[in-house]
Amino acid sequence: MSVTELVDGVLSGNRRYLARLISLIENEDRLAQDALIQLYKHTGKAYVIGVTGPPGSGKSSLVTKLTAEFRKRSKTIGVVCVDPSSPFTGGALLGDRIRMQEHSLDDEVFVRSMGTRGHLGGLSRAASDTVRVIDAFGKDIIFVETVGTGQSEVEVIEIAHTVIVTDVPGSGDDIQAIKAGIMEIAAIFVVNKSDYPGADKKVAEINTMLDLDPRERAWRPPVLLTNSRTGDGIAELADKLQEHLKYLKDSGMLEQKGLQRSREELQSIMKYKLTQELSQKLQGKPEYEKAIRMIAARKKDPYTVAEQLIAEFLFSEIR
Amino acid sequence: MSVTELVDGVLSGNRRYLARLISLIENEDRLAQDALIQLYKHTGKAYVIGVTGPPGSGKSSLVTKLTAEFRKRSKTIGVVCVDPSSPFTGGALLGDRIRMQEHSLDDEVFVRSMGTRGHLGGLSRAASDTVRVIDAFGKDIIFVETVGTGQSEVEVIEIAHTVIVTDVPGSGDDIQAIKAGIMEIAAIFVVNKSDYPGADKKVAEINTMLDLDPRERAWRPPVLLTNSRTGDGIAELADKLQEHLKYLKDSGMLEQKGLQRSREELQSIMKYKLTQELSQKLQGKPEYEKAIRMIAARKKDPYTVAEQLIAEFLFSEIR
Repeated sequence: MSVTELVDGVLSGNRRYLARLISLIENEDRLAQDALIQLYKHTGKAYVIGVTGPPGSGKSSLVTKLTAEFRKRSKTIGVVCVDPSSPFTGGALLGDRIRMQEHSLDDEVFVRSMGTRGHLGGLSRAASDTVRVIDAFGKDIIFVETVGTGQSEVEVIEIAHTVIVTDVPGSGDDIQAIKAGIMEIAAIFVVNKSDYPGADKKVAEINTMLDLDPRERAWRPPVLLTNSRTGDGIAELADKLQEHLKYLKDSGMLEQKGLQRSREELQSIMKYKLTQELSQKLQGKPEYEKAIRMIAARKKDPYTVAEQLIAEFLFSEIR
Repeated sequence: MSVTELVDGVLSGNRRYLARLISLIENEDRLAQDALIQLYKHTGKAYVIGVTGPPGSGKSSLVTKLTAEFRKRSKTIGVVCVDPSSPFTGGALLGDRIRMQEHSLDDEVFVRSMGTRGHLGGLSRAASDTVRVIDAFGKDIIFVETVGTGQSEVEVIEIAHTVIVTDVPGSGDDIQAIKAGIMEIAAIFVVNKSDYPGADKKVAEINTMLDLDPRERAWRPPVLLTNSRTGDGIAELADKLQEHLKYLKDSGMLEQKGLQRSREELQSIMKYKLTQELSQKLQGKPEYEKAIRMIAARKKDPYTVAEQLIAEFLFSEIR
């Protein structure tokens, strides 16, 4: 398949080309990057909504219900699920098949799960490129769903214009820490499973934390109660999302976020390219393997060796 | 303070020098790296135990109880808590002060909390350097405690010789996903809060998952029940840890892990150095700022710009 075919296929709205391109992105195929370069000017139209929160807080079901709500409002939807998975085998643990079953026959909904890919920032890179191609593909709203608050998840969630942080009644003490940690990126808090005991208490707790935040802000994150089973609160959440998008536009924040996003994107791509290039250069080199053995035996230190290898292998061909 | 003073201070067992050096590591001070280079040959002696698992599964209290148990066995202890915290402000959210209070007067226990530091792999870098200096300082056992299963947490936990994965009775469905994801790095499973309803069921569930794993393995992870409040099961867990260390030594796995660890360490340092160097070179350059605006306006694509900037700024001085 040529780059032109791939790009034309995606721009013409062919789902199979889109799925194919995402696989190429995941496999770090050179073709993917060429396609991304050409698709870039067609991006920047989708409203990207991040959904994060502790395990068990019902992110998937919330996204499913929100998808249904926005379909009623004639919006087309993309969903990117960033799944925790093995650092060794890669691959998404929870496949697309078991997610979003109620939308599986709707052509206006495109769902993709992604797993952890290696150690070189590959996951956030691949996820952000995937959001980009779904954007170029023409979906109006793209959900990015991620478990946990690890560094790569934070990177992923920063793609979003609006971040929803989910929580659940009666969660443990560590949750407090997580919540405070992502306080600053949350635009909307959702306490899911509103029929569980303690839901109102949890809402009050989050509101108290928000009130204790000394920073001035034009948008004070609302704390909403939802129920993914009954659908209670979902329409209100969809309204709040549209309200937040309007706020971002009117306040100039959307433009500012776009600049910030471009800066981070550029840094992330540069970092990725450098590490890719370096590992290609070092692959299978006897000097590299010997250096590792010396480090393990404490005969050399890794800091000095790192500088030597960078100078020798990465910069050598340019000299 | 000179590097020699710092290194001598740490090697002589002075806690204040150790604390000082860790702060320098966190601040990415050049002095820290010079000290790390000199301290490197004094490392590789500590037994590093990772403790990970979902929020609310009682990792902190488990580490506190294990510390007490190993102190009875005359082991000296280091604890590095990797806390989720703001991606923007940095800094550990839960301070050392509120942790491990029962060991705060024991000079043979050294505790340090670390927060998320930026986006460039800084956290796992800093945490692994911190474990290294506590190792050089002479602690027999170092616990690395981390919440969640994000990419940076996985990187952090890979420092460990033995990884304990904690879980709690009656946790949500996402937990299953997490558990499967870290299945391969877990040497010991601990179901904490053994007095909660469903503890035995959770143990059975994990055992079932382990039995479904088709891979052959010499060490089949045991699933233990503990209670951090009463201390039940803690001595057995300590025994299992010592048994796993013996297994690693006898099977040659310890040496193999050491090589693997050196490889990852070297890669991580090279990656870190490259991104550091690049951001220094780009800082405040008008071409850089202009490129970001062009990308945000979709007039240029970030992939092409990344290559141009790398060629122009990172490689220019070497030519």
